[in-house]
Amino acid sequence: MMGFSLGSVLMSLGMRSEADQVSVDAITLFVGLLCTCIIIGHLLEKNKWINESITALTIGLCTGIVLLLTTEGRRSHILVFNEELFFIYVLPPIIFNAGFQVKKKQFFRNFMTITLFGVVGTLISFFIISLGSAQLFKMLNDVGFLEMGDYFALGAIFSATDSVCTLQVLNQDETPLLYSLVFGEGVVNDATSVVLFNTLQRFDLSHTTSGIATQFAGSLCSLFFTSTLLGVAVGLLSAYIIKKLYFGRHSTDREVALMILMAYLSYMMAELFSLSGILTVFFCGIVMSHYTWHNVTENSRVTTKHAFATMSFISEIFIFLYVGMDALDIEKWSAVSKSPGTSVGVSTILLGLIVLGRAAFVFPLSFISNLTRKSPDDKIGFKQQVTIWWAGLMRGAVSMALAYNKFASSGHTQIRGNAIMITSTISIVLFCTVVFGLVTKPLIRFLLPLRKPLSSMVESELSSPKFLMLPLLQNGHDREVAMNGQNSTTLPLLQNGQDPEVAMNGQNGTTHPRSLCMLLTTPAHSVHYYWRKFDNAFMRPVFGGRGFVQRIPGSPTETVVS
Amino acid sequence: MMGFSLGSVLMSLGMRSEADQVSVDAITLFVGLLCTCIIIGHLLEKNKWINESITALTIGLCTGIVLLLTTEGRRSHILVFNEELFFIYVLPPIIFNAGFQVKKKQFFRNFMTITLFGVVGTLISFFIISLGSAQLFKMLNDVGFLEMGDYFALGAIFSATDSVCTLQVLNQDETPLLYSLVFGEGVVNDATSVVLFNTLQRFDLSHTTSGIATQFAGSLCSLFFTSTLLGVAVGLLSAYIIKKLYFGRHSTDREVALMILMAYLSYMMAELFSLSGILTVFFCGIVMSHYTWHNVTENSRVTTKHAFATMSFISEIFIFLYVGMDALDIEKWSAVSKSPGTSVGVSTILLGLIVLGRAAFVFPLSFISNLTRKSPDDKIGFKQQVTIWWAGLMRGAVSMALAYNKFASSGHTQIRGNAIMITSTISIVLFCTVVFGLVTKPLIRFLLPLRKPLSSMVESELSSPKFLMLPLLQNGHDREVAMNGQNSTTLPLLQNGQDPEVAMNGQNGTTHPRSLCMLLTTPAHSVHYYWRKFDNAFMRPVFGGRGFVQRIPGSPTETVVS
Repeated sequence: MMGFSLGSVLMSLGMRSEADQVSVDAITLFVGLLCTCIIIGHLLEKNKWINESITALTIGLCTGIVLLLTTEGRRSHILVFNEELFFIYVLPPIIFNAGFQVKKKQFFRNFMTITLFGVVGTLISFFIISLGSAQLFKMLNDVGFLEMGDYFALGAIFSATDSVCTLQVLNQDETPLLYSLVFGEGVVNDATSVVLFNTLQRFDLSHTTSGIATQFAGSLCSLFFTSTLLGVAVGLLSAYIIKKLYFGRHSTDREVALMILMAYLSYMMAELFSLSGILTVFFCGIVMSHYTWHNVTENSRVTTKHAFATMSFISEIFIFLYVGMDALDIEKWSAVSKSPGTSVGVSTILLGLIVLGRAAFVFPLSFISNLTRKSPDDKIGFKQQVTIWWAGLMRGAVSMALAYNKFASSGHTQIRGNAIMITSTISIVLFCTVVFGLVTKPLIRFLLPLRKPLSSMVESELSSPKFLMLPLLQNGHDREVAMNGQNSTTLPLLQNGQDPEVAMNGQNGTTHPRSLCMLLTTPAHSVHYYWRKFDNAFMRPVFGGRGFVQRIPGSPTETVVS
Repeated sequence: MMGFSLGSVLMSLGMRSEADQVSVDAITLFVGLLCTCIIIGHLLEKNKWINESITALTIGLCTGIVLLLTTEGRRSHILVFNEELFFIYVLPPIIFNAGFQVKKKQFFRNFMTITLFGVVGTLISFFIISLGSAQLFKMLNDVGFLEMGDYFALGAIFSATDSVCTLQVLNQDETPLLYSLVFGEGVVNDATSVVLFNTLQRFDLSHTTSGIATQFAGSLCSLFFTSTLLGVAVGLLSAYIIKKLYFGRHSTDREVALMILMAYLSYMMAELFSLSGILTVFFCGIVMSHYTWHNVTENSRVTTKHAFATMSFISEIFIFLYVGMDALDIEKWSAVSKSPGTSVGVSTILLGLIVLGRAAFVFPLSFISNLTRKSPDDKIGFKQQVTIWWAGLMRGAVSMALAYNKFASSGHTQIRGNAIMITSTISIVLFCTVVFGLVTKPLIRFLLPLRKPLSSMVESELSSPKFLMLPLLQNGHDREVAMNGQNSTTLPLLQNGQDPEVAMNGQNGTTHPRSLCMLLTTPAHSVHYYWRKFDNAFMRPVFGGRGFVQRIPGSPTETVVS
């Protein structure tokens, strides 16, 4: 929003210099392309192969080609890929929205598995890619000079699963378990990769000792803990402030602005303290949807829900369009054009290692995870393991950003070895997004056809319209009241009532007594049971949340219900 | 969003350099301050003197002082005022939202008066300030060397009324006529100033001939016309696309994203073609609220209404905070510290000329405008003229941006004459915002106490809750049907139904037959009558709009109504 200054460029008024015009040009073109992507994406929505990211990537590539031809090869991209832009402005809305809209029950139920995949799995993948590339690159003649640190950096870069891509191919409503596992892993995994990457830049890796390993493990744990804590703290602060300030006045704009700004603040504070902003803003989103969201007015709820989703949507398309347009940067490709074989070799080796590295942890860790799950319904089946393995293979903008950070200096690269690494990263990202993206949707449909394993319970409730209105029914009532008395007097509010945490509480308010009993009696859920008791007794009275916000007479809800 | 590159600064990951940390610091501090402003602004809402802009300005100034003390005078601001940031990112949402939420009936009814004030008035003001300063600055000994072009630039800079400030002190519901006149003038006036400024930079002004004057008038007219046309065209295009694409699917995010992006696209296209982006995006907002807004789903309506208002709200606070923090830039003030008398003299002269220049056109032009108004109710009374004069005295961020563009090179200024102009502009903006801002609210209450002149008709309807639900009642009905049959079956939809163009159609659906008859019979409104006929016969069937979007069975509205 404000971290930029185009040096001495005076802009937009009078005295337009050459540089100005280009900048206005670029923004106009880019915004126009974003619109085009949305429209074409909408038209292709029913297509079972193509998803929105492929559309954006293709449009970006085509634009890159057109620019390449019109400018006669001088510059194919209008903007160099910029990690700052990506990490400061584009990524936070996506991850925040993911936290805000995630089905919290599914997420926390699988918390241990997600952490296992996200931390241990990423480490396994990291070592396989690092050591594998160190060995295999020797077969290629002219990769250029790479130190051990560079191989470790490659490992960190390519162990970052693209959570944005994952969101595009998996559907939260169709396969909730898989979604929460793969996406949750993606968030933790991104954080792990970034930490790995940062730590590697700091430590001297020429002589690895056990001391460094311990130090590293310690810094990883403390980072996860503090990042999560910061996100939760900012989320609770926002809930407390809005609960205290809410007096039933017409303050929708203020509430929405405060939620957006505090979410962003949590991310920036994490970055400032060298924590993982991704983890922080994700947990801030979860806390906000659990407490803050229930403290605001009806209109604010609808607005925040859709405004966050829209911001995330625009950011996602932005990334793919951007990667597509940047892929044809002639400068980088000309550096590797003399030895195309090497570049292809590097890409192939890395791609193979990614596939292998992921297989090496998904299947063993799923086995370990299954040992802790008693109910056979809860176990991760083999077909699901294959899906997890496959869906997490995609590499995207996080890998791009890390690669640019390591191997390029402000987007321009001269040394040949670095150029090869950058172009290989671009090739892998393009290949993953297009090929894996095209295949994943049909693959999931093939592997898990109509079975709706594990998810049938949640899904059947979600698809019933009665269920959707429950959250609003509970306004001003206790949760238990709503659970027993499901009258449908508030049907007219239906379109407002799409609660972002619908799945979490919905299962308690279900009409299936079987699943309800199971939920409360199964020992695996006792943590959740005590959390609910604690939440109701201590947290909600302070921070608000469903049923704990006093309704002001004369507020819209009140008018309707009475 | 994307026009920036911090040069070779690598950011947010690993290798944090000094410059990085500052940028993350700055953003974190700024976002934190924005949150603080919102909270304090909310707490002071009931205060009858202070408005949100003064709060933000004060907080900005205080932060500036703290930074000045902690950095031991090295740098008081964390960011230099940046016109690009202002014109490309911060201003568009404000003006778009103004167009989107403006009461269209009031605006178009007073269209001639607004244009008269905005164009002729600004020109009068421009000449008075230019020629006046050229004469009066001679009395000051050491202003430095100023050419005639500089005086004309001063005239253009200080004839830009701050429409953002105006929005803060005038209330659309309390004084609709004044609001539409002053705000409408502000938008046209901003455009005129920017055009004047740009034209002055281009022409050689040492020898003014009648040829240049004609040329100038021609370019002004064509600019107004093409800018408006572009805005209307983009607005209609968005309406058409969304109407064609809307198949009752759950596409809220896409609709909202498309509306935001197309609005921004209109602004950027205008900038690209060297038109007035302000005018373009304002008319785009009007068209979007009249057509596009009615073509989207219920949720999208609520979301867009509040999301646009929130973006505008954040941008406004941003500007005042920014101006406040930038005001204490030690570099500029040290350049003028040797001769404080001159700086005070320049500021006083300019402020006097602003007051005089505005008086010189508001009263004569109001007189002319009154000649064309037949009904005594429609005439602009003397007290209202005083209010128009007073409320338009404020100078804000547009003046700042123009002054920086003219007198500073990328925010840093060395030449003494330029430094004096910059500091004078800052002084005037601070003085206007704080003093005029504090006095305006009480003044309006004093001048127009409880009389609700001219506005009583609109206001009485607005305050009645029945009225608010009318727009939704009309879903799927014709306008005339709703006018005659006002059953209140759709009361539950009340909280969704705050139509941004409530005032425009509301007057037709009123229960006061007197005002209705007056509306249809008064010749002054015959243009409006024919417009309605044309709109219903040709525009709405193509572009949608209230009552002209086919309802899809199963959509939320349908479910509720049937």
